[in-house]
Amino acid sequence: MNYPSGIKKSYNKVISYGNRGMTLEEDINVTNEYYLTHNIASIYKKPTPIGIVKVDYKSGTIKEAYFKTPSTTDYNGIYKGKYIDFEAKETMVNSFPLANIHEHQIKHLDTISKMGGIGFLIVRFVKLEETYILTNDKLQSFLKNNTRKSIPLEYFKKEGFKLELKFNPRLNYINIIDRILEGELHE
Amino acid sequence: MNYPSGIKKSYNKVISYGNRGMTLEEDINVTNEYYLTHNIASIYKKPTPIGIVKVDYKSGTIKEAYFKTPSTTDYNGIYKGKYIDFEAKETMVNSFPLANIHEHQIKHLDTISKMGGIGFLIVRFVKLEETYILTNDKLQSFLKNNTRKSIPLEYFKKEGFKLELKFNPRLNYINIIDRILEGELHE
Repeated sequence: MNYPSGIKKSYNKVISYGNRGMTLEEDINVTNEYYLTHNIASIYKKPTPIGIVKVDYKSGTIKEAYFKTPSTTDYNGIYKGKYIDFEAKETMVNSFPLANIHEHQIKHLDTISKMGGIGFLIVRFVKLEETYILTNDKLQSFLKNNTRKSIPLEYFKKEGFKLELKFNPRLNYINIIDRILEGELHE
Repeated sequence: MNYPSGIKKSYNKVISYGNRGMTLEEDINVTNEYYLTHNIASIYKKPTPIGIVKVDYKSGTIKEAYFKTPSTTDYNGIYKGKYIDFEAKETMVNSFPLANIHEHQIKHLDTISKMGGIGFLIVRFVKLEETYILTNDKLQSFLKNNTRKSIPLEYFKKEGFKLELKFNPRLNYINIIDRILEGELHE
């Protein structure tokens, strides 16, 4: 059974994380709050898509529903007028299994890039406590040139951008977007 | 009891719409599909935010949940690299009651405009079968200069852009975004 990452995480939290720290999702959410409060960017996590089967209209509560497959990525928003779009994933192994991301999400990121937006993955290697950004370009070029079912850590080290945890903003990925935007200007 | 518009609409559909036509949401959704298929724009409706109370982990179904107040608007995406963000509402009267939109949604649209995105409302006057775009600028200037609890139709006629229903794309609001973008260039 596949649950959306947020659901599974909170259910497994005690086992997986204990008091070791925040999940990637929590890190990104507090970072996004920082960006919004400081008028830097407006980026939100989309709600988990739910199919509603039964509603009790008297109390306004949902009595039966199910998790739907998301059509797009989890996060999108605006920075410097530009459209930003990304998916964030944690992996427990020292590679990123491609089974962790839906094919239509990969296609969605590519559509975004082709339309002039900034599309990328944020991947956390939980055991190593390392987090990387991999732009859509680098993701697509990996998929084009490989038949492997997972992207090795080395590829992230070589082609990605490492994100350091700081006090505030906690996971300053906007810094990396600035570098990506600069790169585009110099192309 | 407040239900998200989509839920209420499908529940009341027979009564409110009969065979008269599609709801504004349906019109926008088919239009967005057209834009995506033709590589014009990638714009999606966000899922309805749901608070999950109880999950049956064996079957993977949600057994208790409730509707949450959305933090942002319903639709966002990308067109020509630009960030697009809007809320779509139907009104049964010949004005747009401001109670139909949350205060933080109005604030969100203003944040988007200030960050260089394109923020607007799409409002359908159901009885008149007329649909208008009102940009965030015009919305904010109405709110600044009025204490009224609804925006009269005349304001939409004067300050908004009328959207005509066509065969395909059904509600071509990208045309209007082009005019808004042109207007920005000439400012």
